[in-house]
Amino acid sequence: MPTFEQISQQLDHQAIEVPSWAYGNSGTRFKVFGSAGTPRTVQEKIADAAAVHRFTGLAPKVALHIPWDKVDDYAALTAYAAEQGVQIGTINSNTFQDDDYKLGGLTHHDPVIRRKAIDHHLECLQIMDATGSQDLKIWLADGSNYPGQADMRSRQDRLAESLAAIYAELKDDQRLVLEYKIFEPAFYHTDVPDWGTALVQVQALGEKAMVCLDTGHHAPSTNVEFIVAQLLRLGRLGSFDFNSRFYADDDLIVGSADPFQLFRIMFEVVRGGGYAADSGVAFMLDQCHNVEKKIPGQIRSVLNVQEMTSRALMVDTESLAAAQQAGDVLGAHEVFMDAFYTDVRADLAAWRETRGLPASPMRAYAESGYQETIEADRVGGTQLSW
Amino acid sequence: MPTFEQISQQLDHQAIEVPSWAYGNSGTRFKVFGSAGTPRTVQEKIADAAAVHRFTGLAPKVALHIPWDKVDDYAALTAYAAEQGVQIGTINSNTFQDDDYKLGGLTHHDPVIRRKAIDHHLECLQIMDATGSQDLKIWLADGSNYPGQADMRSRQDRLAESLAAIYAELKDDQRLVLEYKIFEPAFYHTDVPDWGTALVQVQALGEKAMVCLDTGHHAPSTNVEFIVAQLLRLGRLGSFDFNSRFYADDDLIVGSADPFQLFRIMFEVVRGGGYAADSGVAFMLDQCHNVEKKIPGQIRSVLNVQEMTSRALMVDTESLAAAQQAGDVLGAHEVFMDAFYTDVRADLAAWRETRGLPASPMRAYAESGYQETIEADRVGGTQLSW
Amino acid sequence: MPTFEQISQQLDHQAIEVPSWAYGNSGTRFKVFGSAGTPRTVQEKIADAAAVHRFTGLAPKVALHIPWDKVDDYAALTAYAAEQGVQIGTINSNTFQDDDYKLGGLTHHDPVIRRKAIDHHLECLQIMDATGSQDLKIWLADGSNYPGQADMRSRQDRLAESLAAIYAELKDDQRLVLEYKIFEPAFYHTDVPDWGTALVQVQALGEKAMVCLDTGHHAPSTNVEFIVAQLLRLGRLGSFDFNSRFYADDDLIVGSADPFQLFRIMFEVVRGGGYAADSGVAFMLDQCHNVEKKIPGQIRSVLNVQEMTSRALMVDTESLAAAQQAGDVLGAHEVFMDAFYTDVRADLAAWRETRGLPASPMRAYAESGYQETIEADRVGGTQLSW
Amino acid sequence: MPTFEQISQQLDHQAIEVPSWAYGNSGTRFKVFGSAGTPRTVQEKIADAAAVHRFTGLAPKVALHIPWDKVDDYAALTAYAAEQGVQIGTINSNTFQDDDYKLGGLTHHDPVIRRKAIDHHLECLQIMDATGSQDLKIWLADGSNYPGQADMRSRQDRLAESLAAIYAELKDDQRLVLEYKIFEPAFYHTDVPDWGTALVQVQALGEKAMVCLDTGHHAPSTNVEFIVAQLLRLGRLGSFDFNSRFYADDDLIVGSADPFQLFRIMFEVVRGGGYAADSGVAFMLDQCHNVEKKIPGQIRSVLNVQEMTSRALMVDTESLAAAQQAGDVLGAHEVFMDAFYTDVRADLAAWRETRGLPASPMRAYAESGYQETIEADRVGGTQLSW
Repeated sequence: MPTFEQISQQLDHQAIEVPSWAYGNSGTRFKVFGSAGTPRTVQEKIADAAAVHRFTGLAPKVALHIPWDKVDDYAALTAYAAEQGVQIGTINSNTFQDDDYKLGGLTHHDPVIRRKAIDHHLECLQIMDATGSQDLKIWLADGSNYPGQADMRSRQDRLAESLAAIYAELKDDQRLVLEYKIFEPAFYHTDVPDWGTALVQVQALGEKAMVCLDTGHHAPSTNVEFIVAQLLRLGRLGSFDFNSRFYADDDLIVGSADPFQLFRIMFEVVRGGGYAADSGVAFMLDQCHNVEKKIPGQIRSVLNVQEMTSRALMVDTESLAAAQQAGDVLGAHEVFMDAFYTDVRADLAAWRETRGLPASPMRAYAESGYQETIEADRVGGTQLSW
Repeated sequence: MPTFEQISQQLDHQAIEVPSWAYGNSGTRFKVFGSAGTPRTVQEKIADAAAVHRFTGLAPKVALHIPWDKVDDYAALTAYAAEQGVQIGTINSNTFQDDDYKLGGLTHHDPVIRRKAIDHHLECLQIMDATGSQDLKIWLADGSNYPGQADMRSRQDRLAESLAAIYAELKDDQRLVLEYKIFEPAFYHTDVPDWGTALVQVQALGEKAMVCLDTGHHAPSTNVEFIVAQLLRLGRLGSFDFNSRFYADDDLIVGSADPFQLFRIMFEVVRGGGYAADSGVAFMLDQCHNVEKKIPGQIRSVLNVQEMTSRALMVDTESLAAAQQAGDVLGAHEVFMDAFYTDVRADLAAWRETRGLPASPMRAYAESGYQETIEADRVGGTQLSW
Repeated sequence: MPTFEQISQQLDHQAIEVPSWAYGNSGTRFKVFGSAGTPRTVQEKIADAAAVHRFTGLAPKVALHIPWDKVDDYAALTAYAAEQGVQIGTINSNTFQDDDYKLGGLTHHDPVIRRKAIDHHLECLQIMDATGSQDLKIWLADGSNYPGQADMRSRQDRLAESLAAIYAELKDDQRLVLEYKIFEPAFYHTDVPDWGTALVQVQALGEKAMVCLDTGHHAPSTNVEFIVAQLLRLGRLGSFDFNSRFYADDDLIVGSADPFQLFRIMFEVVRGGGYAADSGVAFMLDQCHNVEKKIPGQIRSVLNVQEMTSRALMVDTESLAAAQQAGDVLGAHEVFMDAFYTDVRADLAAWRETRGLPASPMRAYAESGYQETIEADRVGGTQLSW
Repeated sequence: MPTFEQISQQLDHQAIEVPSWAYGNSGTRFKVFGSAGTPRTVQEKIADAAAVHRFTGLAPKVALHIPWDKVDDYAALTAYAAEQGVQIGTINSNTFQDDDYKLGGLTHHDPVIRRKAIDHHLECLQIMDATGSQDLKIWLADGSNYPGQADMRSRQDRLAESLAAIYAELKDDQRLVLEYKIFEPAFYHTDVPDWGTALVQVQALGEKAMVCLDTGHHAPSTNVEFIVAQLLRLGRLGSFDFNSRFYADDDLIVGSADPFQLFRIMFEVVRGGGYAADSGVAFMLDQCHNVEKKIPGQIRSVLNVQEMTSRALMVDTESLAAAQQAGDVLGAHEVFMDAFYTDVRADLAAWRETRGLPASPMRAYAESGYQETIEADRVGGTQLSW
C-alpha cells in the first residue's frame, strides 16, 4: 500500500465548492429553525464560505443560487469574494419557487411559462459572464404528483427543446450541467429522474453539456459508484453534489451516513480519471444543516471528503489488480478494505500544518471566535433561508 | 360474490375524519404554493370540511391541530362546527414547530423542554374536554440526524415517562393514540419509527392507549395490511391516517398511488373487525394537496376510501376461505381479485341518490359554485398553512 | 371514454410470448418444489405453452432458454411447435450456470472465459437461424459481491467488446436485446444494472440492438412507466419481461402485485407507439410459479396483460390532453382513473367468444382435463427446472 | 477516548458462533457453485468451523441445522466437536425443504402439517438435550406469494398455538429464539416479517422466548441499531444472525457492505448491556459464501465483528454523553466517529499474539496448508449444500 507521504501531493489540488445556501437556514417542510449568526446578505454567506476555506484550504469557490443570491452589481460581488479569498463558482438556477412553476418550468405545457424558465437560465448565463463562473447547473423540480396529471413523453420532448435554447447561448468555456433526482418535490414522476435521462438529454445538446450526480438523489440501494464509473467512462460526469442520506434526499453531511460509500465513490473517481486536476469534474457540497451549526458543518464536510479521498488514493492498485486478475475475491476485497481502514487523520493534520493550515480545522474554528462574532454581530435583519 | 345490494347497508355508518390542515396550504421544503380561496381562519377550514361532508355524507368530523387551530372559545368553535353540520374530531398535538423542540420534545434530554412538551399535551386534553373530542393523537417529530447525536435508548425511556404523564390525565372516555414514522423530519433515527415501538409504548400505558397507522410512514416494500391485521389482533389499532405514496411520506390522495393496496388494507380492516360501527378504529385523512385543489382533493379521497371499502366488503369470504383451505393458490387469489376488479361506481352513485346525496360528489361540487365563492370572498388576510 | 366496442379491434393483434421455463419447476434458493405434471422434455414444455395459447388466443410464441432447451434437431422442434399451434420465439442465452462463469461471462477478466461466453451466444444465433427466431435476449448474471472484488470500469469496456463480437454475427432481420437488472445473483454490483447502462451499450452496437425491460429488475420505488416512455422515445425498447413484485425480483404473476402499475405501463406503451402491430416491441412473460400451478398461472398472466391493455386503450386521451393542457390536476387524474376502474371482464369474455375462444379461459382450462392428463401421464423421468 | 489497552480485556470473552452450513456450498436460485474441499459430512463441517476458531480464538461454538446436520449419535458428534476444540451451539430448525411445507409449516392451514412442523421442533429439542445446546432458533419460511392466497390473521393465531406447543417442552435452561424476516422465500407476506411480530409472539410464550435479529432481514433503510437498542431495553434480544447486504437478504460477509453500520450495531449492543459476558445475547454468523472461499470467508467475518466491537468499545462515552447533554450535534457526532475512524488492526494483531493466536489469522490460515489439505483430501462423496 502506498504511504500517506506518497499520496499527499495529490491532495494539494483538491477543491470542493461550497454552496452559498448552506450558510442560510434550511429545514424540512415541517419547520425551518433559525440560528444565531445566520447570514442576512449574500455577502455574509460568502464571508462564511471564505471562513471554511481559511480553516481547511479546501473550499476556494462558493456556488451561487439565483435568484436567492441576486445582487445589482456582480462585479462588486466577485471582487468582494476575491477579497475574502474565494471565487464565485457554479451558478444554480431555480425554477421551483415562483408560483408560475407550480406544474413545471422547462417542461411546462404552457409555452409562456417555458419561455420564462428559459429566460431565467439566460439571466443565469449573464451572471456567469459577470462572475466568471464556468458552470450553469440545472436541477429541475419539474414532475407530477398523480398518474395522468401530466404527459411524461411530451414533457421530455419539451425539456430537450428548452435545454437546447439555453445551451445555444453558452460561451465556449461554459458548461451546462444537468442534475437528476428520483423524487421530491414531485411525488409521482420527475422529468429527470435518473442518470440515464440526464445523459440522453445532455448528449443531445453537445460536448459542453454534462451530468451532475447528487449523491442523495437515487432510489434506495442504488450503487452510486457504478454510475460514477459509467459517467466518467462516457466523459459526461460534470459535477458532484455531495451529501449523505439514510432514507431519501436527506442532505446530511457528506460521509456521515455511510463513509465507506464515500470512499468507494472517491475510489471510482480516481480510477476513472475524475480526480486529475484537469478532469473537468467539479466537486461540490449540497447539504442542509438543519440542526447543526452551519460553518462547522461545512468544515466537517470538506474534511470528510478529504479523508476519504486520501484513503481512496492509498488503495494499492497494483495488488488490487493482481488479486482481481487471479479471481481472488477475498484477497481483492482485503486490499480494498486495507486502504479504507487506514486512519489518515494524524497524517492529514501534519500535512495541513506544513501548508500553513490548522492541524484541526474543527478545533481551530471553534477557538477562532468567528462563530461568537457573527452571532453577536448579525442581529436584526432577516436571516436568509431557502 | 355478494352483490352491491347485499353490502350497501354496511356503507351507511362509514365515517372518515378530515383534517383541518388539509384545507390550508401545504407543500414541500422547496415551496408552499398559495391558492385562491384558501382559509384564513379555523372557521373557514371547518366550513370547507363541512362542504366535503355535504357532498359525500362521509366526513362528519374534522380533526384539529394544536396550536394551528387554537381559538379562544372552543365552545363557540364546537357550536360553529355543529351549525356547519360537522363535529370536532381528533386533537393532534404539535411539538415540532417551536424552536425549543429542535432536538426533540417528549424525548428531549432537557427536562424543561420535556415538561413543556408534556404541558402542551395537557393543554390538548383540555381542548378535548371543551370540544368533546375523544382522541389525542401524538405524532412525534423527535429523532436525530447524525449517529452519535443522541442516545436512542434513554430517549426511549424518557418517551415512556412523558407519555405516562400525559396518559395519567386522560378521562375515561378519552384515548391517547401514538403514531409511528420511519423518518422525516429526522433523518437518522426517529423515536417512534415503527409499529413495534408504538405498540410497546402504548402497552406500557394501559387500555386507553392505541396505535395510529399512517399509511405513508413505512419503509419501502412494507406490507401495511399485515400490520393492520396484527394491530387489530392485538386490540391496539386506534386510528388510520390515510394517504398514499410512491416514495416516502408523499401524503398524496389516498388510493391514488396504489388502489389495490388500499383495497387490501380495507379488506384486513373488515376481516379483523375494524370496520364494525363500534370497533373503535378511527378513519382519518392526513394528506397534502400541494398542486391540486384542496376541497375536491378531499372529496376524491373520501370517495376513494368508500369505493375500496365497497369492493373489500364484496369479497366472497366463504369461497375465499374454501380456496385457502384447499391450498388453491390461484383460486383464492382469483376470488380476492374478483372483488377488487368489480366496478362499484355506478352502484355507489345510485346508493348516494337514495340517501339524498349527489350521485357524483365531484361534479356536484364543481357545479355548486362553492369554489368560486370562496375564491371571490377570501381575499386579504393570511392564508393558513402548516 | 371510448367504449370497449371501440377499442376491441386493437386487441386482435395482441401477442404475449411465454417462456418455456415457466412450465418447469422453479423456486428460491431455499427450495424448488416439484409438482405433478411438470414437463420432462422441451417438447412437453412447448405443449403446455401451446395449451395456454389454445385457451387464450394470446400466446402464439414460446421463448427458449439455451442450454436448458437444447435439442439435436431444431427443425424438428420448430415443426413440433407448429403442430402444437405455436412458434419458437426469443432465444435466451445463459452464462450463469456453468462453473466457468462464477465470476462473470461476457465481462470476465479471463479472455478464455469471455470467448466461451461469446461462443455460447454465437451458438444461440445458429439456433435462431434454425428456429426462425428473431431476437437474441441477453441477460447477464455478471457482477460482483464485494467492493474491490472486480474492476467495474474495465468490465464495462469488456462488455462492450463482447457484445460487439456477438452483434457482428447478427443477420439483418435479427436483433440483440440486452436486459438490465439491479441485483441478483450478484449482490454488490451488476454489470448492466439499469436502463441507462443497457442503453449506452446497445447504442454503441447499432440499430439492431435494443433494451429489454423486465418489470421486476428495478430499485424500490422506481417509476417503471417513465422508463417505458423514455425507451420508446429513443426507439430502443426491444422487449418486455413481464412479471410482478412486492420486494425484489419476485417473479410473481404479472399484474398480481400492483395492477395499477401494469395499467400505467400499458398506457405508456400505447402512448409511445409500442402497441402498434409493427412497433417491434416484443411482450413476454418471465415469471416463476413457485407455489401455484404453472399452466393456469400462465393463463392468468396473459389475461392480466390483456385486461390492463384493454383498460389502457380505453383512456379518453382527448379529455386527458385537455385536462392536462388546462393544468387541471384532479381532472386529468380522474380521466386516467376512469379507464383503470372500468371493469372490462364481461366485455372481454364476450369478445373471446366471438373469436372462438372460451369466455373464461381459467375455467375452460380447469374443466378441460388437460391438467389431470399431464399429471397422470408425466410419471417417471426427471422434471425440468432451472 | 479510551486506549485500546483499556478496552482490550473486554475482548477476551468475545465469542461468535459459526453456522455449520457456511462451510457447505451455497448460492442463489440461479446456481450453487461447487468448490474444492467442501465438506461431505457434518464432521468435516465441524472440523472447518474448528479451524476458524484455532486461527481466531473467536468462534468456540458451531451451530447446527436440522435436518441438514442430523446424525445417529449426537453424543459422538458432541465428543467429536470437543476433540476439535469447539462446542455444539444453537440448533436451527428447518420447515422449508419438505414438500409438505410448500404453503407453510407452523402456520399451515392443515393441522396435520402443523403437527409435523411442531414435531420437527420437538425433535430439535431432543437433539439439544443430546448436544447440550441451549437455544432453539426458529426461522420460518411461512408466508404467501399472492394477495388472497392465505388468511394472514388466522395464520398468526396458529403460529401462536404452534409456538406454545414447542415452548411447553423447553427445559429450564433452554430458550426458544424466533427470527423475523421481511420477505423471501415468500413474496407477498411472511408470517413473522418484523421485530414487532416476533416480539408479540415471544412475549406471549414466556421468559424463555427471545427474538433473533438477522441483520439482513429488514426493509430497505431500516435503522437496525434502533431495533437492537429496543430489544435490549425490553430484555428480548436473544441472538444475532450477522451478515451484510446491499439489496435484500444478500447474506454477504458481515461488515463488508457497511462497516459503519456494524459499528453502530455493536455500539448499541455495548450501550444496552448486550455485550456483557452474562447478557444472554448469542452472536452468530449466518452467511453465504457463494463466490469466495468459505473458511477464510468465516475468518474474515469474525475478525470484522471483533474489529468493530473494539472500535465500539473505544467510544468515549463520557464525552459523548456530555456533548449529547449539551445539544452539541456536531460534537457528539465527532466523538462517535473518532472511535469508528480509529484503526485498531495493529493493536488487535499484538493482542492476538499475547494470547497465542496468529497476528494475522487470514495470513496464517493461507500459510497453514489447511485449505490445500482439504482440497486434496475431500475428493469423492457429495459436497454438502443447502
